[in-house]
Amino acid sequence: MQIESLYHSPNTKWAYSYDSSTFHLRIRTKKNDVNQVIAITGDKYDWDNYNNDYPMEKIATDRYFDYWETELSPAQKRFSYGFRLQAEDETIWMTESGIYDEEPSPPSGYYEMPYMHEIDGFKAPDWAKSAIFYQIMPDRFANGDPRIDPDGVLEWGDQPTNDSHFGGDLQGIIDHLDYLTELGITAIYLTPIFEAPSNHKYDTVDYKKVDPHFGDTAVLKKLVAACHDRNMKVVLDAVFNHSSVDFPPFKDVIEKGEQSAYVDWFHIHDFPVEVKEGPLNYATFGFYASMPKLNTTNPEVKQYLLDVAEHWLKEVQIDGWRLDVANEIDHSFWRDFRKVVKKANPDAYIIGEAWSDSLRWLLGDQFDSVMNYPFSDRILQFFQSEQPNGLSFAENMNNILMRYPLQTNEVLFNLLGSHDTPRVLTMFKENKNRLKLAVAFLLTYIGTPCIFYGDEIGLTGEQDPDCRKCMEWDPAKQDRELFDFYKLMIKLRKKHEVLRFGRFSFLRADAEDGRIIYERRNKKEVFTIWMNQSEESALLAHPADTETEHWQDAFSGEPVKTVDGFVSMELEPFGYRILRRSLNGV
Amino acid sequence: MQIESLYHSPNTKWAYSYDSSTFHLRIRTKKNDVNQVIAITGDKYDWDNYNNDYPMEKIATDRYFDYWETELSPAQKRFSYGFRLQAEDETIWMTESGIYDEEPSPPSGYYEMPYMHEIDGFKAPDWAKSAIFYQIMPDRFANGDPRIDPDGVLEWGDQPTNDSHFGGDLQGIIDHLDYLTELGITAIYLTPIFEAPSNHKYDTVDYKKVDPHFGDTAVLKKLVAACHDRNMKVVLDAVFNHSSVDFPPFKDVIEKGEQSAYVDWFHIHDFPVEVKEGPLNYATFGFYASMPKLNTTNPEVKQYLLDVAEHWLKEVQIDGWRLDVANEIDHSFWRDFRKVVKKANPDAYIIGEAWSDSLRWLLGDQFDSVMNYPFSDRILQFFQSEQPNGLSFAENMNNILMRYPLQTNEVLFNLLGSHDTPRVLTMFKENKNRLKLAVAFLLTYIGTPCIFYGDEIGLTGEQDPDCRKCMEWDPAKQDRELFDFYKLMIKLRKKHEVLRFGRFSFLRADAEDGRIIYERRNKKEVFTIWMNQSEESALLAHPADTETEHWQDAFSGEPVKTVDGFVSMELEPFGYRILRRSLNGV
Repeated sequence: MQIESLYHSPNTKWAYSYDSSTFHLRIRTKKNDVNQVIAITGDKYDWDNYNNDYPMEKIATDRYFDYWETELSPAQKRFSYGFRLQAEDETIWMTESGIYDEEPSPPSGYYEMPYMHEIDGFKAPDWAKSAIFYQIMPDRFANGDPRIDPDGVLEWGDQPTNDSHFGGDLQGIIDHLDYLTELGITAIYLTPIFEAPSNHKYDTVDYKKVDPHFGDTAVLKKLVAACHDRNMKVVLDAVFNHSSVDFPPFKDVIEKGEQSAYVDWFHIHDFPVEVKEGPLNYATFGFYASMPKLNTTNPEVKQYLLDVAEHWLKEVQIDGWRLDVANEIDHSFWRDFRKVVKKANPDAYIIGEAWSDSLRWLLGDQFDSVMNYPFSDRILQFFQSEQPNGLSFAENMNNILMRYPLQTNEVLFNLLGSHDTPRVLTMFKENKNRLKLAVAFLLTYIGTPCIFYGDEIGLTGEQDPDCRKCMEWDPAKQDRELFDFYKLMIKLRKKHEVLRFGRFSFLRADAEDGRIIYERRNKKEVFTIWMNQSEESALLAHPADTETEHWQDAFSGEPVKTVDGFVSMELEPFGYRILRRSLNGV
Repeated sequence: MQIESLYHSPNTKWAYSYDSSTFHLRIRTKKNDVNQVIAITGDKYDWDNYNNDYPMEKIATDRYFDYWETELSPAQKRFSYGFRLQAEDETIWMTESGIYDEEPSPPSGYYEMPYMHEIDGFKAPDWAKSAIFYQIMPDRFANGDPRIDPDGVLEWGDQPTNDSHFGGDLQGIIDHLDYLTELGITAIYLTPIFEAPSNHKYDTVDYKKVDPHFGDTAVLKKLVAACHDRNMKVVLDAVFNHSSVDFPPFKDVIEKGEQSAYVDWFHIHDFPVEVKEGPLNYATFGFYASMPKLNTTNPEVKQYLLDVAEHWLKEVQIDGWRLDVANEIDHSFWRDFRKVVKKANPDAYIIGEAWSDSLRWLLGDQFDSVMNYPFSDRILQFFQSEQPNGLSFAENMNNILMRYPLQTNEVLFNLLGSHDTPRVLTMFKENKNRLKLAVAFLLTYIGTPCIFYGDEIGLTGEQDPDCRKCMEWDPAKQDRELFDFYKLMIKLRKKHEVLRFGRFSFLRADAEDGRIIYERRNKKEVFTIWMNQSEESALLAHPADTETEHWQDAFSGEPVKTVDGFVSMELEPFGYRILRRSLNGV
């Protein structure tokens, strides 16, 4: 056995409360190196009378490792534990104090789960786990009130530049809610809507005022009410990492220098503060002179921003916040932010923007979710490849699944693209077949899917500003076939709980091709999803694992035959099939 | 290179702020497998203009792994990073997204340190890093006021039982502060002193009242003031996991059942609540019927206990809290506890009781330190062995050092024993030579040492109640030679900053013997400590690493010769030597 591969930590994703009574343990071993893992558990205060062995299940494999997991519900809400690992011709024990050839006497040196407290667990709102999100950039979605257009708006549909405005607004969104409902959307996320000079509004001037070119508080309330009438949630964008240089406190610092009462609202290196090209004497978002970084560790700034967060939750009943550049703000701020937000609305959903491993924000005390860009990267890489490696895709997906506890994976914000990436169709060189497979994957995968406005009707575009083109409302210019495909997949996801909450695993993934099979599974049913990421048709077979009559096509309900215990599927180029069977003979 | 051994996480002890401007990165590789590791860093917003390579230093080796570390101070307080690892005939790159044979283009897929915020760092009080602690069980230390003895006290020095009282009290401690000052003690930690029926008082009845058999608030104030006059700190024991069954809220639940206003103060399974043998219908500490577990997630209970914590800090100016059964209380409670405590006294020291890996409480938001029992275990194991394995000792010590960030190791509460373990001299079968080596190790090691009352004058005793014998005050019965040894070692530690704050590493450790050499090092000086854990004398040699005249005996100041670039030391059975040299030719 390769000892150095073994990894466990009595912590975070390796040992965590899944819910108030269920605990998960995970351990990592070298790929294909270990045959069986048993979690040995007991109560350290009375091991003899309270102990249990739990066989662990191999739940995922990536390039180098197998991951094993088990679930337990200790009566005293506490336990100590070790692992027994069995390889071909070797058995070892692993505890916190080391590796042993014989079982070390418990509980000394064993790992400890001292006490399970529900308050320390991770709990995202239930609605978010089932939501189908749609991301809207208000300036580009629909112009519902030309009276409030900014000066110099371009013609709707013109090529956008970094500075162009198109006049989209909140009324425009209200006007198209039927469209979203038809698509199957249950939640919208709006990029920033508060007063700001830019078209994207990530440079806030007034956090408590709807941008007058988008509308006002009244129309925002109208939008939220209209959404709620349709059981649609509304999430706004909180830009708390930095402000505009026109944010009054920053202007005050420029004007008054060291005498300004707002000096500590920012990170000022020296005076006088000047907004200019070249090296700056204040911290910024990236190196953007126009976006001074806020000092969120200053109690005044913190209170100000927490008031903003609370204000919009209470005043217009929004359902959550997406947090811009969330990982550059201090953890201390986000802990208090969570308290304020959940107090104002216990069902509010908090999604951080973070592009890399975000476990440290997802332990229950800060965010509910993060934008899952590592997911997008891997999806794009696989589905755009002309020489796809299914095995590598499966390993990469498993690798990111194993970054987080299960309940976090259930609510990660999965996306194929956003205002910060090229359009997904463009990434696929406008090959719609590839896009459809990626969309089918997104909508049958674990986590909360989000669609960037217009992807569903075939909008294209390279990196910003090209990816932020105006929404196309002329049905003749929309790709309605693509729209119907999105609609179909959304409907399927909404109909079957297992597609939202079921466990995910790959059943087939080969290094030589892009033909993959994966399953979603809960106690009631199993889905298998078959995909042929290839320009050639393919015949795939997989063990049926049950009697003939139980497998059926998930859309048509037609039975699927099995032959000699195998299900076989003929898949067209870029074809896919989704099969379903009930468990318990249902 | 063995890829599966590699471990890094952009988090906790692998990537952390050491102080407000210094960041540490660590990575793990297979033992003796990698020759060089470089941390490749840059600013993700402008990599070309802001990037740096940092060679990493191998700082520790345990049974299976080498650990590498580097220190950096990024100008923008943010950076992305990856690692380049060089083995005999192979170079690989490791980033968050995987392992590569060629350098992946930064910053995509690299690890991220998004922004260093001082507020998120770990900061223990400076005084604690330099303190020499002494643990006192008041009932057993000294009887300064026989008028307040409980009924039925035993004769001072009688064999203790689980229920015996001896009449020790706070006045007794005041009376012996000269003794502690002579020994060199700078901080005392008292086991609980609040009203409770037992002799150990871990079953609190009144959290706001000094136990009348120990004294009252006035005498406690007198004690604290007397200590502060000597620059000695006072830490009390907070027993917040559970109470006594006589704690009025629990009595109320017993009396009134479901009607009690205090039902949610505990974890009651059903009614009526009865204190009895056998299965209980309320959660307890361990399975002790007399110690009902408090529901610290109930806001009322939390507020009550936080008030208690604040009360004693403010009322009598204590310098910190040791937290009983700390790991069984929720993290949420401890986060607020820290805020309350640090607000009342920013210099207060918070030490949790936890016997296993405690990283999750030591990230800056909860405790400053934990009682380092894993340290005690390894020290006892090595220094009591008749066939010592120095290599295994070094590996085990390195393994626990690598559990925590450096600044945590600098302030871990190191002990050889406590009221919950057999006396250290007894563990060593009363071999005083072994004890002295262990004490020398404790007092030349990284972390805050604590001495259990009486160890320094040769008290013996098996597990509780035997380890809780009365302090011996008759000089004729005290082991004064041992006392002088403790005193000498304490004085040395206090004199040389490097023994408190210097980096620690082993220089010699062999599997075949107990002859070890280790060093403490800072920018100004180096100490090497030589120990011969053996009944035979030994001649040890180690490369001198500098010119002859710079090495000297740390006690006598006498120069130590080097021959052919080696320092050689003749060590008696169980002998030790402590050498010192100044850097920079000082």
